[in-house]
Amino acid sequence: MKTRAAVAFEAKKPLEIVELDLEGPKAGEVLVEIMATGICHTDAYTLDGLDSEGIFPSVLGHEGAGIVREIGAGVTSVAVGDHVIPLYTPECRQCKSCLSGKTNLCTAIRATQGKGVMPDGTSRFSYKGQQIFHYMGCSTFSNFTVLPEIAVAKIREDAPFDKSCYIGCGVTTGVGAVVNTAKVQAGDNVIVFGLGGIGLNVLQGAQMVGADKIIGVDINPDREAWGRKFGMTHFVNPKEIEGDIVQHLVELTGGGADYTFDCTGNTIVMRQALEACHRGWGVSVVIGVAEAGKEISTRPFQLVTGRVWKGSAFGGARGRTDVPKIVDWYMNGKIQIDPMITHVLSLEEINKGFDLMHAGESIRSVVVF
Amino acid sequence: MKTRAAVAFEAKKPLEIVELDLEGPKAGEVLVEIMATGICHTDAYTLDGLDSEGIFPSVLGHEGAGIVREIGAGVTSVAVGDHVIPLYTPECRQCKSCLSGKTNLCTAIRATQGKGVMPDGTSRFSYKGQQIFHYMGCSTFSNFTVLPEIAVAKIREDAPFDKSCYIGCGVTTGVGAVVNTAKVQAGDNVIVFGLGGIGLNVLQGAQMVGADKIIGVDINPDREAWGRKFGMTHFVNPKEIEGDIVQHLVELTGGGADYTFDCTGNTIVMRQALEACHRGWGVSVVIGVAEAGKEISTRPFQLVTGRVWKGSAFGGARGRTDVPKIVDWYMNGKIQIDPMITHVLSLEEINKGFDLMHAGESIRSVVVF
Repeated sequence: MKTRAAVAFEAKKPLEIVELDLEGPKAGEVLVEIMATGICHTDAYTLDGLDSEGIFPSVLGHEGAGIVREIGAGVTSVAVGDHVIPLYTPECRQCKSCLSGKTNLCTAIRATQGKGVMPDGTSRFSYKGQQIFHYMGCSTFSNFTVLPEIAVAKIREDAPFDKSCYIGCGVTTGVGAVVNTAKVQAGDNVIVFGLGGIGLNVLQGAQMVGADKIIGVDINPDREAWGRKFGMTHFVNPKEIEGDIVQHLVELTGGGADYTFDCTGNTIVMRQALEACHRGWGVSVVIGVAEAGKEISTRPFQLVTGRVWKGSAFGGARGRTDVPKIVDWYMNGKIQIDPMITHVLSLEEINKGFDLMHAGESIRSVVVF
Repeated sequence: MKTRAAVAFEAKKPLEIVELDLEGPKAGEVLVEIMATGICHTDAYTLDGLDSEGIFPSVLGHEGAGIVREIGAGVTSVAVGDHVIPLYTPECRQCKSCLSGKTNLCTAIRATQGKGVMPDGTSRFSYKGQQIFHYMGCSTFSNFTVLPEIAVAKIREDAPFDKSCYIGCGVTTGVGAVVNTAKVQAGDNVIVFGLGGIGLNVLQGAQMVGADKIIGVDINPDREAWGRKFGMTHFVNPKEIEGDIVQHLVELTGGGADYTFDCTGNTIVMRQALEACHRGWGVSVVIGVAEAGKEISTRPFQLVTGRVWKGSAFGGARGRTDVPKIVDWYMNGKIQIDPMITHVLSLEEINKGFDLMHAGESIRSVVVF
C-alpha cells in the first residue's frame, strides 16, 4: 500500500513529504493509521545529526495515536478498529526485564529497533525501491505505519487523538517519572529543574499525587506562568538568586527536597538536583538526555549521607499496562494536556513544528493527519 | 573519677596511655565501662591527620561494648548493669530524621558530636586540668566513657564483649548495608568490591539473606581465602582479568549484578560498581569513605537505563533498634565474627593494632580492658 510520510532523507535537512510504499503487517505485527503525532525533542536530536546512532533515510516520529487497520498472523491482543498509542518502549511481558517486575525497559526487540528495522530484520517502508528505515520502532510521521503487537497500547476510543498522542512520549515521561520511578507521595516536597514539556508534566504529576511544595526551577522567566498552570507552588529563577542555588533550594524546602527531577539534560543541573535533595532520604531522578560524552559527578559523601541518584526512561511506564491508565487520568481530568498543545499543524507544515521547537516557542506541536 | 585511656594528643603521633579525669553522667547520660573495643580504619584516618575535621587532644575509638555503671537524671531506657554497645550514630526517635522512617541518620546531637563534646557543649574528659575531647560521640579507647542515653544500644548479656564490640561499627556497616540499605533478597546476584573487614561483612550479609552469586573483587589474592569463609561464591582479581573488569563482571552475572557494594573508598571503583549493575534495576551502594576532594562520575545514561546509585552509613541501621538484632544474629550463628578478630590486644598494645592495620595484616584488632 501507499502512505504519505515526512521522510528524513539525511541529517540536518528538512523533512520531505512524499508517498512511500508500505508493506502490510507480518506475523505478530499490526498496521496502524496514525491520526496525530507530536514532534518531540528526540526527533529533532536525531534530525539535527546529534545522535551518533541515527539512521537515514528514515521516517521519524515516536509520539503518535491512531487506529489499528490490519493485523498480522497470530496477533491476539488488539483487533482491527482498536485505538492505540505506539510504544517506543514495548512491553513483551516475556523477557527477563519484563518478568523482573522492576523495570519497564523491555529488551525483546531492542536490537532490531536500534537498527531501524522490524524484529525480522527488514523494513516495511520503501521509496522508489529504496529501503527507508523505521525510527524508535514507531515512525509516526507517516499516515500509516507497521508496529509489532507488543509495541502498541490499546486505549479508550473516546480519547481525542490530537491530545492522546502526547501520552506516547512527553506526558508519560513526566507524569510517569513521578508516579512510577520516584513514587512521590502526598505531602512530599518536589523540585523540578527545567520547565519544558517534560518538566511541566512532572509538575502536574506531583500535583496529582498530592505533593506539598512543588518548586519549578528555570532560567526563563516566561516559564513561571506555564508552571503555575500545572501545579507549581514556587518558582525559582537561578539567575535571580544571590549565592548558591542548591543552598537556596535546601533552605526553601527546610533541609532539601524529598524528590528532585532533572528535565534539562544539563549535567551541571543534574548535580544540583542531587545535592538539593534532603539528607537521609532525598531521591533525584535524571530524565533529561545529556549531550554525548558529558558525565555527572558529585562527592560520594552525598550518597553516603542518604541521597539516591536514579534515572527514568519513558516515565518508568510499562507501555501496554500503564499508558492506558494515563489516558484515563487525562480523560478523568486528573491531568491536563490541552493547554500544552500550543500548535496544531498539517503534515505539510511539519518542518515548521521543528522550527518552533528550536525557537523555544512551542510546548508541543502536534501534526494531525 | 579516674579512667585509663589511650589519648590522641595530636595527629600523626602514637596514642599515649594515661589516666584521665572523667566527670560522671549528667541528665540523659550514662557512664559505661568499656570492656572491649575494636580499632577501625576511621580511627586511623583521624589519627593520621587525614580528617580535616579531626579534633585533638581526644579519646578515639567508636567500636566498643561494655556495661552501664551509672545513669544520669531522667535516664529510663537503660539501667545500671545493662550491657550496651555505644552508637556513633544515635537514635533519638524524636527528630525529623528518626521520625521519617526513611533513614538512620539521627540528627539530634550531630552538631555537638562533630565538635567533640557532649550535647551540653562540654567534655567529660580532662587530663591535668586540660579538656580532652570526645570522638564520634563514643571514645571507646577509654576504660570508662560517658554517652548520651540515645547513643547506647542495649544488648543481650550472654554476648561476649570481645566479639560484640565489632558490631559497634564494622559488622553493622557491612551486614546492615545488605539488609537495611540494599534490602538484598534471596536469589539476587551480588558483587562486593574490596574484601577488607567491611567487605567480608557484606559477603556474609549477602549469604545470610540467600543471595545466589556472591562475587568478591579484590586485587589482593590472599583475600580469596578470606572471602570463601564468609559466603563468597566467586572471586575476581582485576589484575588477572584481561580487558575491562566491568564487562567481565557483567558477563559473570548474566547482564550485571542486582546489587553491588563499594567497600574500597576508591572513586574509580565506585564507578565500576555502578556500571557492573544490571540494566533496568541494579543498585550500587557506596560504603567506602573516599579521600577528601575525590568525586564520583558516570554517564547519566547509566542512571536513565535503570541503575541506581546510593550510599550507606552505619549499614542503614537504627542503632538502638537494629544493633541488638545483629547481636542476636551473631549469637544464633547466622553471622560469624570470631574468625574476623585476628588480634586481641591490651590497651598498652593499642598502637600495635594501628600498625597491623596499616600493614594490612589484620582484619580486626580488638583491645580488651
